[in-house]
This record gives sequence, C-alpha cells and structure tokens, in this order.
Amino acid sequence: MLLGRALMGDTSCFGEVVDDRFHLLSGGMLEGYRRVGRSLPLADLVLGAPLTGVRLIAVMGGFLEPGTSRPPGIQPMWVPKACGFVGGDRAQIRVPAALTGAVQMEAELAVVVGRPLRGASPAEAAEAIFGWTVFNDVTAAEYVAPGLWATAKSIDGFASWGPWIRRDLTERRVLEGLAITGTLNGSKVQAGNTRYFRFAPSEILSHISHRISLFPGDVVTLGTPPPAVDAAAGDHMVCEVEEVGVLTNQLLAAGSEE
Amino acid sequence: MLLGRALMGDTSCFGEVVDDRFHLLSGGMLEGYRRVGRSLPLADLVLGAPLTGVRLIAVMGGFLEPGTSRPPGIQPMWVPKACGFVGGDRAQIRVPAALTGAVQMEAELAVVVGRPLRGASPAEAAEAIFGWTVFNDVTAAEYVAPGLWATAKSIDGFASWGPWIRRDLTERRVLEGLAITGTLNGSKVQAGNTRYFRFAPSEILSHISHRISLFPGDVVTLGTPPPAVDAAAGDHMVCEVEEVGVLTNQLLAAGSEE
Repeated sequence: MLLGRALMGDTSCFGEVVDDRFHLLSGGMLEGYRRVGRSLPLADLVLGAPLTGVRLIAVMGGFLEPGTSRPPGIQPMWVPKACGFVGGDRAQIRVPAALTGAVQMEAELAVVVGRPLRGASPAEAAEAIFGWTVFNDVTAAEYVAPGLWATAKSIDGFASWGPWIRRDLTERRVLEGLAITGTLNGSKVQAGNTRYFRFAPSEILSHISHRISLFPGDVVTLGTPPPAVDAAAGDHMVCEVEEVGVLTNQLLAAGSEE
Repeated sequence: MLLGRALMGDTSCFGEVVDDRFHLLSGGMLEGYRRVGRSLPLADLVLGAPLTGVRLIAVMGGFLEPGTSRPPGIQPMWVPKACGFVGGDRAQIRVPAALTGAVQMEAELAVVVGRPLRGASPAEAAEAIFGWTVFNDVTAAEYVAPGLWATAKSIDGFASWGPWIRRDLTERRVLEGLAITGTLNGSKVQAGNTRYFRFAPSEILSHISHRISLFPGDVVTLGTPPPAVDAAAGDHMVCEVEEVGVLTNQLLAAGSEE
C-alpha cells in the first residue's frame, strides 16, 4: 500500500496509489483513512511530501563498509533536521545565496513513525513503524567541517521526501537488502544496499526514543550510502530505493526561475 | 512590558505582568493582544514557557573573552534545538536514564522573533525583535564530544525559558551590557555580561535568515558565558539576566518523584 499527498493548488489531499490511479482518502493519514470512491490519474498529479509539519531526524554513519561488522559499543548518530521548508517529488530545492560551499545530495531510505515511542525496545519500535519512504537528505557541506551537522541539514528546503509512504514492507525485508541509488544528471553517483545498515531501523528508533520521545509522523531518515555527492545549481537529482519509490528533485540557485 | 503564559490545569492564558499582578490578555501574543480587565496575583501562578510549539535555535560560542575582539571572517555558529518538551519557570527537567554523561546548565539571554525574516539585514532583523527572555539551554555533554551539538541540545525537556518575554528593551541596551548569572544549588557558577557578545543579536538573526527563514515565535538563544556547568539530578538551577528575569528549574532523574 502506497499513501501519498497530491498537491491541488493551495490545498492537497491524501490518497492511495494503485497502479496508475490515485484513490482519494478521507481522514488523517496517521489516524486512519478510508477511500471515498473517487480516483484521479496519477500522471496528472504532483505528489508533495506525504505529511506536512512533521519532525525530521537524520541518522549519520548509517552504513557499514560491506564485509565489515559493527564494532561493539557503538551507538547510532542522529541529529534533528529542522528545515522550515520541506519538499516532495519534483520539488525544486533552492540554495540560499549566502551558502558558499558545496551542496550534497544524499539518497536514503526513511522510516515514518506511527505511534508514540518513549523508552521503547527495538521490538516495540518495530511495531510502531507506519511505513517507509525515500528521502533526499540535502546537506550544506560548509557546516559539516565545523561539526554542525544539524545546521548543515536544516537549511531552508534542504529536505525532500516521498513520493509516497509504503506501508506493506517489513523491516525483515528491508534488512534482507534493498538497493539505494542516487543519480545526478543521469549518472549513477550513489549505490548502496540496506543489507549494510549499521543498525536495524527499529534499533535506531529504540535508541532515539530513550533520549527524545517520538511521535506519530516523525520521519527518521536512515543515512546515505557513502559518498555524499556534491551537486550544483541546475542539477537533477534522483533518489531511488528498491521496492519503495523514486524521488526526483532539481537543485536551483536562490531566485532563479524554473 | 512583560508578557507571560500562566498555566491553568490543562490550559493556559497569556497575560501582562505588572508588579505583583498578572493582567489577563485576549488574543495571540504575537498577533496582538489587549487586556480583558481582569488580573490575578502573580504569586498564585506558575508561568510556563511564554509560547508553545515554537522553534528553538541555539547559538554556540556567543561570547568573546573579555578584552579580546572578534577575529575577522568569523561567522555565528548555531544549531536547531528540537526538544519535544519545553519547560518554563519552575519546570522540572528530567534526565532520561539512557544518558550516561554529564548534563550541563547554560544560562542565556534569548531573543524572540516577531516578524518573518528571510535574507534580512541586521537593521531589518533588529526591527523584527519581539522581545527578550531568559533561557536555560540544557545540554547533554556526551553528544558534544562527537560534535553532535544539536542532539546534545534536543533531548526531551532540555529547554526551559521564561518566566516572561520582556518587550521594552532595546538591542542597544543589551549591547551596553546586562549581567548573566547561573546559580547551582545557591552557588554562583556562571557569570557573564552581554557586552561581551561576539555578535549583536540582530547580526545573528540576519545571518541565520540568509540560511533558514525565521518566523514569528522563533526563539534564538544567544549562547552562554563559559563555562557550561555540570549539574546532577536533584540540583536546583537558576538562570538570571539583568533587567529581563529569573528562571528557576530543578534537574531530576527520569521517573523520580518531585
């Protein structure tokens, strides 16, 4: 099941994507929903970020080098990603003129939290997963060097996710391995696989929930297969996660026209 | 003028503090307000964080060593502070059991944004200041060492501000110098002065607004006079900024009783 949010002028509506149709849903996505009996052709729609006003958390160092195993005692690294503007599929991401360093694309799998989690075990966290989505964790490199990870990831518009949330995917399937691919102007620049995750997503949610309470709608993006890739204004970025979706964005200079 | 929010069971109301009375206001604090002609004794009230649901941004390295000047080319350092729970005066701050390192109190002056700011000059930013408040920028030291500043500052409950917002204070007065004092269990452990700010608050707001849009209600806490001070469960923390206010909190272990 794929749940998305279609942009309709200055409003939007939830729907379920089945093949090439978008079946309108009533209700809040997280609180429950049902089909209203009307559908639209998917090709006519632009899907925004599946949920709005949600909290984003970014995991760093999410991947092991293939063939290595996790050193004992290591913990997940995560930061809040507090972007004021967040895009969805086909969103244009504008680079503020004040930034002087590189802007990086990071293709990632992200998990959407469905239930409140506080001090949860990994098993409890796994039960609370609402679904999975594709995330472009855009990062301003100039803030990475001085260690300001959250700042690097919180610039206006430096987050895009979607095009939908896939619900019928188990963590077990994720850990068996899904390919993650990042493509820049048609060239594959990132290639990884979730079988090399350093931590299971449920372990990460459990870890975070012992430090900050997680709420329905929180989106935790699980880290990018290295390397993060420098992109420039005008570049077309495509992030893909096998069995989840394809997310397309363009990077533009601030103030430039489409 | 001092604007606060009095907690009333599971609701709250805005008011203006004059001497020992809390004059109830109607309206949203940021959108405009007027007295409704009723007041309560301040001593009977607990003032929560003056606004709820706002975005917090923390500045690091906000102070110069007295007698030194700012090196050329340096920029403000800031991170989102994305606490899920935020307290006000007399709030108890509970340390999650999963934290293993020290918890630090940081007495700070903070500025409340009153108008949207994007790509603003320092002069425009100064015009957009809604008011000033006292902030305890509680920090989990174990995340500072690996450079996860935002994580360190975003733990549940690791933010307290208030007891009110002072509106009738100019940036010029702030830069002339206001004493900042941090007191732990009755001992003065932090002492600084805003005359040693590395950047004027309006310079910081301008800088941030070129990278992320600022919105009414955003609270930017301007950094603590070094050193940050380790506190332990049970400790009473008092943060004071001259001419602004006194903010009192207690640090407790998670799950402990008052």
